[in-house]
Amino acid sequence: MTASAPLDFSSLLAPDLPPPAAKWNGFAKYNFIGGHNDADQLPLEPLIKAANDVLTREGCTLATYGLASGPLGYRPLREFLAGKLERTAGIRCDPDEILITSGSLQALDLVNGILLARGDTVVIERATYQGALTRLQRLGVQAVGIPPAGNGMRMDALAAALDDLKRRGVRPKYIYTVPTVQNPTGTILSDARRQAMLRLAAQYGVPIFEDDCYSDLIWDGKRPPALYAMSRHGGVIHIGSFSKSVAPALRVGYIVAPWPLLARMLPLKTDAGSGALEQMVLGEFCPRHFDTHVPVLTRALPAKLETLMEALNEQFGTAAEFDDPKGGIFLWIKLPDQVDTQKLFAPALAAGVAINPGAEWSTDKDHGRSRARLCFANPSHEAIRAGVATLAEVCRREFGVPARIANVERARA
Amino acid sequence: MTASAPLDFSSLLAPDLPPPAAKWNGFAKYNFIGGHNDADQLPLEPLIKAANDVLTREGCTLATYGLASGPLGYRPLREFLAGKLERTAGIRCDPDEILITSGSLQALDLVNGILLARGDTVVIERATYQGALTRLQRLGVQAVGIPPAGNGMRMDALAAALDDLKRRGVRPKYIYTVPTVQNPTGTILSDARRQAMLRLAAQYGVPIFEDDCYSDLIWDGKRPPALYAMSRHGGVIHIGSFSKSVAPALRVGYIVAPWPLLARMLPLKTDAGSGALEQMVLGEFCPRHFDTHVPVLTRALPAKLETLMEALNEQFGTAAEFDDPKGGIFLWIKLPDQVDTQKLFAPALAAGVAINPGAEWSTDKDHGRSRARLCFANPSHEAIRAGVATLAEVCRREFGVPARIANVERARA
Repeated sequence: MTASAPLDFSSLLAPDLPPPAAKWNGFAKYNFIGGHNDADQLPLEPLIKAANDVLTREGCTLATYGLASGPLGYRPLREFLAGKLERTAGIRCDPDEILITSGSLQALDLVNGILLARGDTVVIERATYQGALTRLQRLGVQAVGIPPAGNGMRMDALAAALDDLKRRGVRPKYIYTVPTVQNPTGTILSDARRQAMLRLAAQYGVPIFEDDCYSDLIWDGKRPPALYAMSRHGGVIHIGSFSKSVAPALRVGYIVAPWPLLARMLPLKTDAGSGALEQMVLGEFCPRHFDTHVPVLTRALPAKLETLMEALNEQFGTAAEFDDPKGGIFLWIKLPDQVDTQKLFAPALAAGVAINPGAEWSTDKDHGRSRARLCFANPSHEAIRAGVATLAEVCRREFGVPARIANVERARA
Repeated sequence: MTASAPLDFSSLLAPDLPPPAAKWNGFAKYNFIGGHNDADQLPLEPLIKAANDVLTREGCTLATYGLASGPLGYRPLREFLAGKLERTAGIRCDPDEILITSGSLQALDLVNGILLARGDTVVIERATYQGALTRLQRLGVQAVGIPPAGNGMRMDALAAALDDLKRRGVRPKYIYTVPTVQNPTGTILSDARRQAMLRLAAQYGVPIFEDDCYSDLIWDGKRPPALYAMSRHGGVIHIGSFSKSVAPALRVGYIVAPWPLLARMLPLKTDAGSGALEQMVLGEFCPRHFDTHVPVLTRALPAKLETLMEALNEQFGTAAEFDDPKGGIFLWIKLPDQVDTQKLFAPALAAGVAINPGAEWSTDKDHGRSRARLCFANPSHEAIRAGVATLAEVCRREFGVPARIANVERARA
């Protein structure tokens, strides 16, 4: 009789589950991972006022799933987005061509859900968002990586990859790109390359999946037109987020696509709506404050980036190579070839420094091997300096680089 | 050259997608579907105060994913839940054995995610939550339905089903049950049957998946101990929600399970956290107001149920059969055999009345054929009366029943 023996779930688990999560022990002291933002710049007062105002006026709609707006999401927020996207990204769309999602991660899941099946192929930037790569792995989809040069994806390499796939009878399901403040490289795809990408996409009959979730965070405020706006043959699905421009913990993203595509996504969005309170607060806050809040961020963030680059120069000297991004919240650095950032991760964390190892952010593990992504928005200037100094120490101990007095080394070079 | 022809997505869609969604045209005038609640009972003032207080005190944590609480969700809310579940359901658990989810629907997805693979079998109440059934269909999992009698699932039928499956070499992945205010029948499983179900589950080595999302809404406030609390061999996963007790549009649910199981679910929860603002507001509201708010609901809801049952008696007479539920927000009615509620749906909706056809809420389509679920929490008393009168008219026109003067018919019977 087994009635009193504890039930063992291990023989009941689905096959191919990811490894179990470790218990969370708080954020690292020097936290250079995750898309966290600068707590000092959070527009707290206007958010509180927005919560007050919108709940007082229409809080009773919380009694119905989807408020009074239906499954596409809170209508005033979609109306704000339609206006903002036209103003800043050149996208002309109706509020009913916008689906509010629980963060842009649900947007990724829904786009993948309607397009991808096991065995499919997609084309993607060689270094790209880890969450996009892990999703493709879980779905059994092959990701063909395209290398960048200068300001974004190389169009000759894209053409060659599409041509090669076509010869092999493979029609990729989409070209996934973060064209504006690319994650993790921070590049902004030039207008000429945008045109070239659209031409290639049309020529090969491949949609473009445009992830524009960092595009509000450009230092000079000059956001290029979205691929969605530039396309003359449709074929672009656009996603974005408020996580980077307002607050990460508010899980509000969106998809812009023609209604027939949204109509295929909605039945996969089986969550009875995204969080209403967050949508209502943003719908109230954004029309009044979004345009004045974003410049606050784009003044504070480059100062932190400057601190990070200075600290890297000081502590790593020529051992850390990077380009100076024009926006965003992260820096993509190259360490000397002998450094394996996946092996650096654990001792760095033990010393209080969390970094994103490059191999996890790349279709080409060798390319990513000695690279890392450092997010600079959340730690204070002091934490950035102390964290980089600690990282340099750990790296030196584990891999022998940087040399002890990096800035002197650099001056000699 | 195809560059100017619009890209046709139809050849790119994944196979086996659900049919596209129709455009949303607002709620039906007489809305008896969806788990909407009574807008008049929404605790708006304390929710607004909670939003104010919690944002003023710790709003700056919105700058980090997961606030300062990690991936299990806002810790003060988990602490409230640990206390509440012990007090009301006898569950003793640590806040780290609670995972906050984006509504109980994400909880369903996560539990299914770690346990189910295509071809699996689960055991489930014959009439049950539609969202559970559609998820199993999408996953390619067979649902074996167990009929109820009196207060919940029949234990002889459960024993026979488990025995039959075992003979055929099938070990079901779980027994899914809504034991407390069953959806849609409204029954409350007796203590004796709870004990019997736990014995059978242990005997056959099958976990119980306990969906307790209506359990706060019992008229007399006497919630029986949860199966999770009663089990002595573990093997129960418990989920719940604030959608029914506070507000549906706040998408906050939870899973109670031992940490080793939550550790398998967390890597599947790839949403970078559930909505923080909703968790924070509930975490602030609940310790102060949950226990006084729920009785407000459990006084208002039975009055609406009473109106619904009166209206059904008046308009349908003996043509509508139902038991008087002891809690919840819905009534499960049986119409005469000639009524097919799936065929009643469209003309009823055209007349302004939305109902849930029973076949969509049952593993046995024949059993559900002449049944329907009517939700009574959201419409006003006037709308309930007018909606039922309209429904009776449409039903009479389409199926010849109820007879014109139902209450007179009934008096004669």
